[in-house]
Amino acid sequence: MVLLIKSGGAEAIPEWQSLLAELAPDLVVRGWDDPTVAPDRVRYALVWEPNAGRLAQFQNLELIVSSAAGVDHILADATVPRHVPIVRMVTGETGERMADFVTMAAYALSRDLPRIVAAQREQRWDASLTGRMASETTVGIMGLGELGRASATRLAASGFQVIGWARSPKSLDRVQCYVGRGEFDAFLSRSQILVNLLPDTDETRGIVDASLLARLPHGAAIVNAGRGSQLDPAALLAALDTGQVGSAMLDVFDVEPLPANHPLWRHPNVIVTPHVASAVSRRAKARQAAAAIAAHRAGMPVPHLYERERGY
Amino acid sequence: MVLLIKSGGAEAIPEWQSLLAELAPDLVVRGWDDPTVAPDRVRYALVWEPNAGRLAQFQNLELIVSSAAGVDHILADATVPRHVPIVRMVTGETGERMADFVTMAAYALSRDLPRIVAAQREQRWDASLTGRMASETTVGIMGLGELGRASATRLAASGFQVIGWARSPKSLDRVQCYVGRGEFDAFLSRSQILVNLLPDTDETRGIVDASLLARLPHGAAIVNAGRGSQLDPAALLAALDTGQVGSAMLDVFDVEPLPANHPLWRHPNVIVTPHVASAVSRRAKARQAAAAIAAHRAGMPVPHLYERERGY
Repeated sequence: MVLLIKSGGAEAIPEWQSLLAELAPDLVVRGWDDPTVAPDRVRYALVWEPNAGRLAQFQNLELIVSSAAGVDHILADATVPRHVPIVRMVTGETGERMADFVTMAAYALSRDLPRIVAAQREQRWDASLTGRMASETTVGIMGLGELGRASATRLAASGFQVIGWARSPKSLDRVQCYVGRGEFDAFLSRSQILVNLLPDTDETRGIVDASLLARLPHGAAIVNAGRGSQLDPAALLAALDTGQVGSAMLDVFDVEPLPANHPLWRHPNVIVTPHVASAVSRRAKARQAAAAIAAHRAGMPVPHLYERERGY
Repeated sequence: MVLLIKSGGAEAIPEWQSLLAELAPDLVVRGWDDPTVAPDRVRYALVWEPNAGRLAQFQNLELIVSSAAGVDHILADATVPRHVPIVRMVTGETGERMADFVTMAAYALSRDLPRIVAAQREQRWDASLTGRMASETTVGIMGLGELGRASATRLAASGFQVIGWARSPKSLDRVQCYVGRGEFDAFLSRSQILVNLLPDTDETRGIVDASLLARLPHGAAIVNAGRGSQLDPAALLAALDTGQVGSAMLDVFDVEPLPANHPLWRHPNVIVTPHVASAVSRRAKARQAAAAIAAHRAGMPVPHLYERERGY
């Protein structure tokens, strides 16, 4: 029973093997490009951006484990057999790391850190960059799934005013929740820091556009830790230039790595982070993959299954 | 009854006057360089870095209010009359803003933000900069006065492991407290992020030196939001070069503004902030100054008085 892995490159395979030897000793763990593996022996795959057409070759494939919370990098290959369930990588660490990142971003943006860092680059001391207090800053979270809820709860514990927006009604301690398109404008008009954590669906693609940005309070800050395709970079740059958006911390991009000379790299009010918001350790990923495979083999419900109808 | 103000420059005087007109309508509020003020009418002074010899000229001066939490910028003038009490600027905002800053710094350093920002400067995408989780990071706070306690409490609420060190025993929820020189090494050896919030005294000057840095865990991070004179910049730079110290966020410096071409401006693992950690609004300062003057006039105890024997 072979688990084939494409995550972290060939150099990561020994680490995956040693982690999984403990967690699932009867699995044979092999690298994606291992020529000795017979395709009909591959039952499981743990993948990030699998080469198109490859997964369809494993006729006995039973379960695909995504190496990330999103699965768009797998669905991009239209030949992936639709009957094989896909598990999203949502570990305890995922939510915790996302909450860490979002709270860091909210503190950094409320305290004008992008401008402080830009001033440092020019050796310029600007004591007027005092920012505002967390307690007087309202953070709006778009998307109240596991990552959004973990982030909202942490932000509230850290002293921010927190509001949230989701497609269906949610209830969260200390977080005022807005629902659906009907309440979207009310939500946006209060979000001094807007955090995008929406899943990647047809509805959410391009959602952070010029029209959305215009409905935020003047000088609002943006945190994108959802998907790069959800934010229109040209609209963001235009809003930064007029001051409608004051600053941004961006972790995901339409094309990654962000291409050289992209204007976002150089904008003084933007901090670019290299898709690390919820990056979890290989140990946590191995634990989650082993648990999903064990549940599947035992005929138990597999947690964090991707649902095609819902789109996440 | 004149309140003379030197804080924010001549252009800030109209704002001070309008704020204090509400809070203390019977005070005559004048700027430091106003030539129409008779020296014998000055009863109160709200000051930042008063010119040497000037305060001694006001023979009816009853109370000096520092425009900052520290008073060293006043004591630097040896002619300041010793019988005039000095009030430290400790507002509700001071503690809250310091807690905001220290928590931002702890998140930023635990998530490797200085290196991420340095990589952005070179348009370099380095997805290995994932840092560590707040819950697996121990932050050590040196100094558990009002600012240290506010910061420690916030850090604990934000998910960090928090320990503290002070001269006398302290008790704080969710914070393990170490006491005195005897427990200093035990405290240092656990501090993955060391936050200096000590008051400025003869004992604390230069305390963050090569010997202290050597006793931290390898790769520890430093936050200095106490006094610039408490940290030896040459020792810090040397420790950054060997990797004993991994990164730093520094808000205070021996000479401010930090001089052009100082190596700290340019170090890739250091973020320099322009003494804004606990910078409070003029509104909050005016409120605190008016309250101190009112208490003094009523013969009531004045809060946050500087004590010469204690040194803060």
